[in-house]
Amino acid sequence: MGLKNTRAGNYPEWYQNVVNEADMAENSSSPGCMVIKHWGYGIWERIRDVFDEKIKETDHENCYFPLFIPLSFFQKEAEHVDGFAKEMAVVTHSRLAMKDGKLVPEGKLEEPLIVRPTSEAIIADSFSKWVKSYRDLPVLVNQWANVVRWEMRPRLFLRTREFLWQEGHTAHASAAEAEEETKRMLEAYRDLCENTLAMPVLVGRKPEHEKFPGAVDTYCVEAMMQDGKALQAGTSHFLGQNFAKSANITFVNKNNESEYAYTTSWGVSTRLIGGVIMTHADDEGMVVPPKIAPYQVVFVPVIKKPEDADAIMAYISNIANEAKKVMPFGEKIRIKIDKRDKSSVDKFWEWTRKGAPIICEIGMRDVESQNVMVKERIKLGTPEGKQIVSAKEFIDTLATRIDSIQKHLFTKAKERLEQNIRTDIKTPEELKKYFESSNVWIEDEKQGKVAFVRGKWSGDANSEELLKAMKITIRCILFDQSGTEGVCLLTGKPATMDVIYARSY
Amino acid sequence: MGLKNTRAGNYPEWYQNVVNEADMAENSSSPGCMVIKHWGYGIWERIRDVFDEKIKETDHENCYFPLFIPLSFFQKEAEHVDGFAKEMAVVTHSRLAMKDGKLVPEGKLEEPLIVRPTSEAIIADSFSKWVKSYRDLPVLVNQWANVVRWEMRPRLFLRTREFLWQEGHTAHASAAEAEEETKRMLEAYRDLCENTLAMPVLVGRKPEHEKFPGAVDTYCVEAMMQDGKALQAGTSHFLGQNFAKSANITFVNKNNESEYAYTTSWGVSTRLIGGVIMTHADDEGMVVPPKIAPYQVVFVPVIKKPEDADAIMAYISNIANEAKKVMPFGEKIRIKIDKRDKSSVDKFWEWTRKGAPIICEIGMRDVESQNVMVKERIKLGTPEGKQIVSAKEFIDTLATRIDSIQKHLFTKAKERLEQNIRTDIKTPEELKKYFESSNVWIEDEKQGKVAFVRGKWSGDANSEELLKAMKITIRCILFDQSGTEGVCLLTGKPATMDVIYARSY
Repeated sequence: MGLKNTRAGNYPEWYQNVVNEADMAENSSSPGCMVIKHWGYGIWERIRDVFDEKIKETDHENCYFPLFIPLSFFQKEAEHVDGFAKEMAVVTHSRLAMKDGKLVPEGKLEEPLIVRPTSEAIIADSFSKWVKSYRDLPVLVNQWANVVRWEMRPRLFLRTREFLWQEGHTAHASAAEAEEETKRMLEAYRDLCENTLAMPVLVGRKPEHEKFPGAVDTYCVEAMMQDGKALQAGTSHFLGQNFAKSANITFVNKNNESEYAYTTSWGVSTRLIGGVIMTHADDEGMVVPPKIAPYQVVFVPVIKKPEDADAIMAYISNIANEAKKVMPFGEKIRIKIDKRDKSSVDKFWEWTRKGAPIICEIGMRDVESQNVMVKERIKLGTPEGKQIVSAKEFIDTLATRIDSIQKHLFTKAKERLEQNIRTDIKTPEELKKYFESSNVWIEDEKQGKVAFVRGKWSGDANSEELLKAMKITIRCILFDQSGTEGVCLLTGKPATMDVIYARSY
Repeated sequence: MGLKNTRAGNYPEWYQNVVNEADMAENSSSPGCMVIKHWGYGIWERIRDVFDEKIKETDHENCYFPLFIPLSFFQKEAEHVDGFAKEMAVVTHSRLAMKDGKLVPEGKLEEPLIVRPTSEAIIADSFSKWVKSYRDLPVLVNQWANVVRWEMRPRLFLRTREFLWQEGHTAHASAAEAEEETKRMLEAYRDLCENTLAMPVLVGRKPEHEKFPGAVDTYCVEAMMQDGKALQAGTSHFLGQNFAKSANITFVNKNNESEYAYTTSWGVSTRLIGGVIMTHADDEGMVVPPKIAPYQVVFVPVIKKPEDADAIMAYISNIANEAKKVMPFGEKIRIKIDKRDKSSVDKFWEWTRKGAPIICEIGMRDVESQNVMVKERIKLGTPEGKQIVSAKEFIDTLATRIDSIQKHLFTKAKERLEQNIRTDIKTPEELKKYFESSNVWIEDEKQGKVAFVRGKWSGDANSEELLKAMKITIRCILFDQSGTEGVCLLTGKPATMDVIYARSY
């Protein structure tokens, strides 16, 4: 009952199969945009709720800023516009009119408006009005919003023209405080990825040529997908005074002098869902970590004789009511009883492909013996794939069971990450040879289980070209530096910086 | 310490003052769009959370559909486009280029895209792919999203080019089931307005000329603002087969025949916040009902001698910790300790203008006597405006206190609504005379306390013109019909329908 494509067979098609079969999202008739369906949006709601709590705990306030940014705002920050001008939706008219039976745009705007690709420009404009004195600082805001970037090769969750995200924006009285904020939120992303999505990440700083347009420093969390490619899961930018200067965010400091503020921005998006898929899904379909599963437990009635239906449904309802009192991770549990008019086998495979963590099949025999047939998604196909336990034991161990599924997923992904960072590549020649042969699913034994290379980088000005020629990128300059000297894997020059080389999404 | 303008003095300026002084929203540099600030967005988050629970309870599933709708989709539903074509943002280009030092739109799209003014057209397109058989019905989805309508006279919360809303969209196998859904969600809006926003509403059906473009029937909840004008707070539309026909949503029914589905749509928006303001705010500023207040209780330390600060903060912290265990309305309480470096008097007035339901001022004397100075926003300026109660009593009665504030606000608004519906106007002449003199704040004694007129309507084809000439509207054909015969207040003809005549936002 597996997917049409496997990871080893055709990884990109496998990804598409997972998304389709789990009914998480689909391409829409609006070119390059996706429809996020219930199972995908439910995962996003969970990610949002968890991170929103963190945003509030760290004293950030949710606000909402305009979708449209006047074109002239982009002219202010030169680097910023260079980075985004190539991929923006431009609104030029404000109405439609019928001409010769055809609708045409009318009411040309004096100034075109850009549909936000990110909101630094428009939020900096607000900050410039709000901030007058050091007493008004820091300003700590966040918004949950949709953004648009004109992607030419869209891919569900990973790269669509419109996507959903949160973007935090802050202004501070000193560079040190702003940098501290940048790193605090990076750490919040690491925590979100690892402890909520069960997706281990590497943390570090982007090289100069990979920075956010307009940033002084971009920090990132990078995850390893099952095809060995890197996925940038979140970024946190220290913007220095760049946006403050272009938007004129000035404040009177404690010495009564006027100064430009220091700003930051940081964001994660629905792209995380793509990361979750490529971290946990298998050849049978999606696997959702319990913390973000729209339903953690699904009950599937197995009704062989119509006359048993009432007894089975009553028994399920009783167990579900007991289960509702269980608090995995100290939160309300999420339970679904699948009452649809469909065969139980079809239901089982549907929830399997959706990756619901626990599926309980309950038939007349279970009612009579007061048992529950428990199938954990992560144990599918193993000897423990089906467990018959008493209803009492099921309830008593449910929180632990859910917790251990979450832990198992993280541990497995963490091992994969750790086992697939090569550290034995020592020269540019070896690096080149390695990446020429390794663009495959990393658990395909024939190709070797390798994906990332940890090695030295000299920071040479030539690096971008050399990387492009090899179709790889430097994912980050690791926070975790060894301090040793070695040879730059790009240029052969002496180097001390430890970086991650990888192909990427 | 009141606002610059009063309701009786200059109602529109008063509204603006309330929004500004409560720091809920402001105009942005993006023309016609607003920045929703923390206090305003926090209210929206509360409204969203409460209604989202209702959406899920009633088996609707949250999804997310594209922001952009291809222009050709609007050509399909003729009535629909007539209704919206005059006010839509049109995307015509996909990038910017620098020409002679100026950024200009480039990459003209083959087909212009409309920024969604509402999503019937694009969602019906998805439904047409999802629905094949009666077994696929009903489809019950909702999305929380931003929408854009090119308003020429924007007004914060009430009428801005971009606003936030939820839009529910459903498809059904029969007209009866779809109509039932339409009315179920109308009832959910009535419940939301009355029991969460403490804003009483009248419910009914819109006259033909006020229907949603493309709908068979539009139902609505209408609230009375303090200037006697009506505010349409929410609408629920029975769309019949209109959108199903234009988007080709067909299904095979139980008799194995192909049939068009019946669809509905329903929405409420950030406009509700404008309604809350004009229902509850007074000449001192905003008043937020506890159920939607971002903070229900605010503690303001009153520190006269610096050496008292620690004792006062410790005392507040203790009380706040006790208060956190209180569950008003069975939910987690929302508490703020205002630690900012500002005078306690300034803080008190700031929270008063924001309309925080309960402000507790605590100084050294309270620490010594183990008391709390409680100021309820709704009692400001009355003899009970300041109450000194023991810390124990404060905690013991806190849930009841919060509950009674919510009830008081609803009762007061309900009385206002009931007392300000005139039923003694019996002829077109009287109606005309009445509305010529009554466009004022309804509690201004000199002008008489009247606002809505309940009376007969014949449904005459001429009505729209007659209403326009008088600058009034029929808000709804009331669900609550008397069944008696009378005289149409517009035409003088015999009529039986009971409707509400009013000026409106």
